[in-house]
Amino acid sequence: MIDRSDPAAAIAAAAERNSNWGRWGPDDVRGTMNFLSESKRRAAAGLIRRGVSFSLAQSFDVNGPQKGWRRRTNPVHTMLDTGTDATAGIQGFPHGLGGADDVIAMPLQCSTQWDGLGHIFDHGYAWNGRPAASVVTSQGDSVTGIETVAGVIAGRGVLLDVGRCLGDGGELPDGFAITAAHLAATIERQGPTSVVGRGDIVVVRTGQLARCRREGWGDYAGGPAPGLSFTTADWLHDAEIAAVASDTWGVEVRPNEFDDAFQPLHQVAIPHIGLFLGEMWDPDALAVDCAAGGVYEFWLTAAPLPITGAVGSPINPIAVK
Amino acid sequence: MIDRSDPAAAIAAAAERNSNWGRWGPDDVRGTMNFLSESKRRAAAGLIRRGVSFSLAQSFDVNGPQKGWRRRTNPVHTMLDTGTDATAGIQGFPHGLGGADDVIAMPLQCSTQWDGLGHIFDHGYAWNGRPAASVVTSQGDSVTGIETVAGVIAGRGVLLDVGRCLGDGGELPDGFAITAAHLAATIERQGPTSVVGRGDIVVVRTGQLARCRREGWGDYAGGPAPGLSFTTADWLHDAEIAAVASDTWGVEVRPNEFDDAFQPLHQVAIPHIGLFLGEMWDPDALAVDCAAGGVYEFWLTAAPLPITGAVGSPINPIAVK
Amino acid sequence: MIDRSDPAAAIAAAAERNSNWGRWGPDDVRGTMNFLSESKRRAAAGLIRRGVSFSLAQSFDVNGPQKGWRRRTNPVHTMLDTGTDATAGIQGFPHGLGGADDVIAMPLQCSTQWDGLGHIFDHGYAWNGRPAASVVTSQGDSVTGIETVAGVIAGRGVLLDVGRCLGDGGELPDGFAITAAHLAATIERQGPTSVVGRGDIVVVRTGQLARCRREGWGDYAGGPAPGLSFTTADWLHDAEIAAVASDTWGVEVRPNEFDDAFQPLHQVAIPHIGLFLGEMWDPDALAVDCAAGGVYEFWLTAAPLPITGAVGSPINPIAVK
Amino acid sequence: MIDRSDPAAAIAAAAERNSNWGRWGPDDVRGTMNFLSESKRRAAAGLIRRGVSFSLAQSFDVNGPQKGWRRRTNPVHTMLDTGTDATAGIQGFPHGLGGADDVIAMPLQCSTQWDGLGHIFDHGYAWNGRPAASVVTSQGDSVTGIETVAGVIAGRGVLLDVGRCLGDGGELPDGFAITAAHLAATIERQGPTSVVGRGDIVVVRTGQLARCRREGWGDYAGGPAPGLSFTTADWLHDAEIAAVASDTWGVEVRPNEFDDAFQPLHQVAIPHIGLFLGEMWDPDALAVDCAAGGVYEFWLTAAPLPITGAVGSPINPIAVK
Repeated sequence: MIDRSDPAAAIAAAAERNSNWGRWGPDDVRGTMNFLSESKRRAAAGLIRRGVSFSLAQSFDVNGPQKGWRRRTNPVHTMLDTGTDATAGIQGFPHGLGGADDVIAMPLQCSTQWDGLGHIFDHGYAWNGRPAASVVTSQGDSVTGIETVAGVIAGRGVLLDVGRCLGDGGELPDGFAITAAHLAATIERQGPTSVVGRGDIVVVRTGQLARCRREGWGDYAGGPAPGLSFTTADWLHDAEIAAVASDTWGVEVRPNEFDDAFQPLHQVAIPHIGLFLGEMWDPDALAVDCAAGGVYEFWLTAAPLPITGAVGSPINPIAVK
Repeated sequence: MIDRSDPAAAIAAAAERNSNWGRWGPDDVRGTMNFLSESKRRAAAGLIRRGVSFSLAQSFDVNGPQKGWRRRTNPVHTMLDTGTDATAGIQGFPHGLGGADDVIAMPLQCSTQWDGLGHIFDHGYAWNGRPAASVVTSQGDSVTGIETVAGVIAGRGVLLDVGRCLGDGGELPDGFAITAAHLAATIERQGPTSVVGRGDIVVVRTGQLARCRREGWGDYAGGPAPGLSFTTADWLHDAEIAAVASDTWGVEVRPNEFDDAFQPLHQVAIPHIGLFLGEMWDPDALAVDCAAGGVYEFWLTAAPLPITGAVGSPINPIAVK
Repeated sequence: MIDRSDPAAAIAAAAERNSNWGRWGPDDVRGTMNFLSESKRRAAAGLIRRGVSFSLAQSFDVNGPQKGWRRRTNPVHTMLDTGTDATAGIQGFPHGLGGADDVIAMPLQCSTQWDGLGHIFDHGYAWNGRPAASVVTSQGDSVTGIETVAGVIAGRGVLLDVGRCLGDGGELPDGFAITAAHLAATIERQGPTSVVGRGDIVVVRTGQLARCRREGWGDYAGGPAPGLSFTTADWLHDAEIAAVASDTWGVEVRPNEFDDAFQPLHQVAIPHIGLFLGEMWDPDALAVDCAAGGVYEFWLTAAPLPITGAVGSPINPIAVK
Repeated sequence: MIDRSDPAAAIAAAAERNSNWGRWGPDDVRGTMNFLSESKRRAAAGLIRRGVSFSLAQSFDVNGPQKGWRRRTNPVHTMLDTGTDATAGIQGFPHGLGGADDVIAMPLQCSTQWDGLGHIFDHGYAWNGRPAASVVTSQGDSVTGIETVAGVIAGRGVLLDVGRCLGDGGELPDGFAITAAHLAATIERQGPTSVVGRGDIVVVRTGQLARCRREGWGDYAGGPAPGLSFTTADWLHDAEIAAVASDTWGVEVRPNEFDDAFQPLHQVAIPHIGLFLGEMWDPDALAVDCAAGGVYEFWLTAAPLPITGAVGSPINPIAVK
């Protein structure tokens, strides 16, 4: 049971139980991505059976979910050159060549993304026990920048479609806290292809995105949502997964499970477990395929842009079955 | 032989010989990505043998190659929240939580990227014969935006290390035009794992990036470079590849092979063949591995960010062997 | 009377009656700013009597009125260097120096601003009869870019506080169309210091901004608003003013006075009269002073940033009395 | 004489001699702008004699002087809507309306600008003795943000054309340190209209910008330049001016006058004197007029954009004589 009045104590206890500080040496910058070894990757290759592929990314555009909280806006995409310009003959290229170029300005946390290890701190400490101020300054994350995992995030993905297994019409209601028992029940219901093990990238589908797609974004960005219970910290740690992602803004259940709290599971998962969190993924098309075929595992590549010093990255995760 | 004085005629002839307009119906938006079928993807899965993975992306930061041509700048990454702020205790979060967020502003053509099908026009026509002005406006590419191939670019990759096979010290000199004969010689030299076929993503390594890494960017962005000869248009078409990428700014040899020209191969490849071009990739670590093991094929995922209406996308291509 | 069903005819007629095309020669780029002559400026200097100054700008930040229409977002201001970083000692400067730098990304039309002469076209024609496509491309406005009036917008300003004169509690209701008669009544009520003449910059206060400040932005950006009636086109032309500004999003009354219309007064005022429109100004502090002292004229400087090729500019207009 | 080996001691001594901390109370946010009183502004109105106006701003575009130091780039201006689009008939507006909109992304320190009071710190202290970390975080300057002086920067400007008075061909060489004696000699040479007093905004012309305009930017951004000697700190303080600006990147002479130093005069002027510094101004057209007429004083408005929390602002200063 959670003591709703004392998040600090609960966080400290969960952090102590689940800390991976030092597990991969004092210089480690990859956290749980260390679990995603070459042998795990090799084994996962066998999951590509039909050759069918799925993008797990939302659209990146001004119609996204962001509402401006902490200056998180939706992406703004503008053109430097266009077809209308080319047709108007004003581009100055020879022999009939025309071209179009474009620009984007966006928070790295605006849409489908990875939280990197420099994204969250606990009492001034970042992953592996480093002082936050020595890791992330205005110059960016000089230690655990997302570029440090540029080449590694490819391996076995597992969909835990909690929404479909335990929800009504495939969707969990906002505020639904997914516990370890719910995860176990989902795995049980889905069958052996969804057993979770070391190095896996776990995608938890709540169904909230499907609801928002139908009813509008509403408070998708930071408002009430289904999501992982704070109590899953131990499960996330003990399972030795490489990463966990969901179809919600913030992976965790919202409102959080303490009277005064803000993303307490993040505070354990990122700085203490060293776990990568994927947010605002879109697993819906994949989920339909998984449900239809009863196969919940797949080859997954979710490569961050190697933006030097970034504490996260927009991504387009590709699942192949 | 190329008549250096008449690029327009050469382009028109090459376009006519190699046009894929209508090949996949009037509504097609994927061009040569249609070659990357599920069966091709299924077959490519077997290339994951050791589980070793490689990022083929350059760094995304202000130290990149761009010099401002047509407002193409290097990425500017800034922080919305930092560890120094968290440590200073000014973030306002409860229970010791601290966070870091960030923002990026960048041209989509600034670093490792795909040219989408709306990137280049020939005499006012875009891929599949559509008028350019009806495809790409200031609102973006409303037909062939890069989001249309968000889920498909995963399959067999082949490295053609022309620099290592035909160059001095692993590098071709600037201005070296790689012909179909050079490509054939490279394949011959590298052996059967580098045979190119339908649906493959071909990565041509010239060695220029290695030279720039050693000597500085210089005119990497648009200046003299080794690259594909204009005459490879037929090879690119006939091979039925899904895409071709290189370690240079513009894939094509620079200066171009006409007296007054600008990227003439683009003008055939993108609007007429419907071919995706990958630019500024970094195949060097992969190339070392390929040369050491004699295996030049691999599983490749190069997923664009699904930026709605974009004519290209920054990417982090991941090769797994 | 306006025929609500035929905006095109009304616009065409108003354009013909009020056209200034050719008035300042075929090469003119300043439109009505030509009225703001040195002699007008000299005369206006006498309006600085007490030395008290007022900013007529709204704040530029993420809390502004924009809601994303046509990708108009609020400004995003981020830091490149901070005091927390300086204090953390990570900046690398010698002898105890610390610094802070910052960046902004914003639409030029996001807050207090000038519409330049390249901002609006009528049937493909821009100011002075130029084809719009030859004026404003993706490269910007190559003819009437806002930089062409960088040095001239300083002279006599006149506040017409229609909200205070004719409104309830100092505010006109949304949808209130200010006619020439209302303007005349306001001038009459305010007295001789508000007589409008050649070269003046007229600031029309509706009171809507005060209402939004009290009640929230709501649909300030593009929704219902008090503003100039379409029928004031003749007044704006005949008065030979240099510019007109208001405290609303779009100067004109909203909804517009035709069944199917979008900013029809803009379509006459900018391309045909060559008139500069100021939007989202904040005249409220100035208005209190004007009402208290009965003096509605002042020295006004409203200098655009000379952004090369811009069709408008954010501004901070300064009134001095 | 400056002891070139001990900048810290020289800075500390100059700071102590010239500190204005507490002069305007503990809550002050305006520093030397307090000198620009209503009476000063009233007196300055008389300087508008001919009605001729001058912009003192450089162009804001990608061709500016920035080279990327500390992520300071040149402005990137892009279009959201264009005349080519309007002509192509794809904008969707009724009754023949067409429009153009635009966006800018730029460091606030990229071109003609004010350094605000939060821009520079001395040993962790900002203006008026506040700890830097309590003033400027990633959220911006919460105390002395540039918006706090949005309405006040209008008054008497004085041009000290040191380049024309003491230079060769109107230009001082790079590395030329302008001392108080040089300033006095310039005032003497220019005559009584250039006497500097309380509340004035002093524009120091070195001629470097004219040289760059002729020869290219070179190292304008941060490289060798003529400018104020560190020793002018006392002059700047004692003169009780409101602000000082110049036509160089950094106001101060470069290289700085200590063996290992970076902008030491800033370190005294901004946090201790509370002085606003204007950089990259373009006084050249004004200077020609001043020299021709022998009148070096003028009405000057240099209004920052009220970007909430900004440590500086791009500006278009307007001088009227």
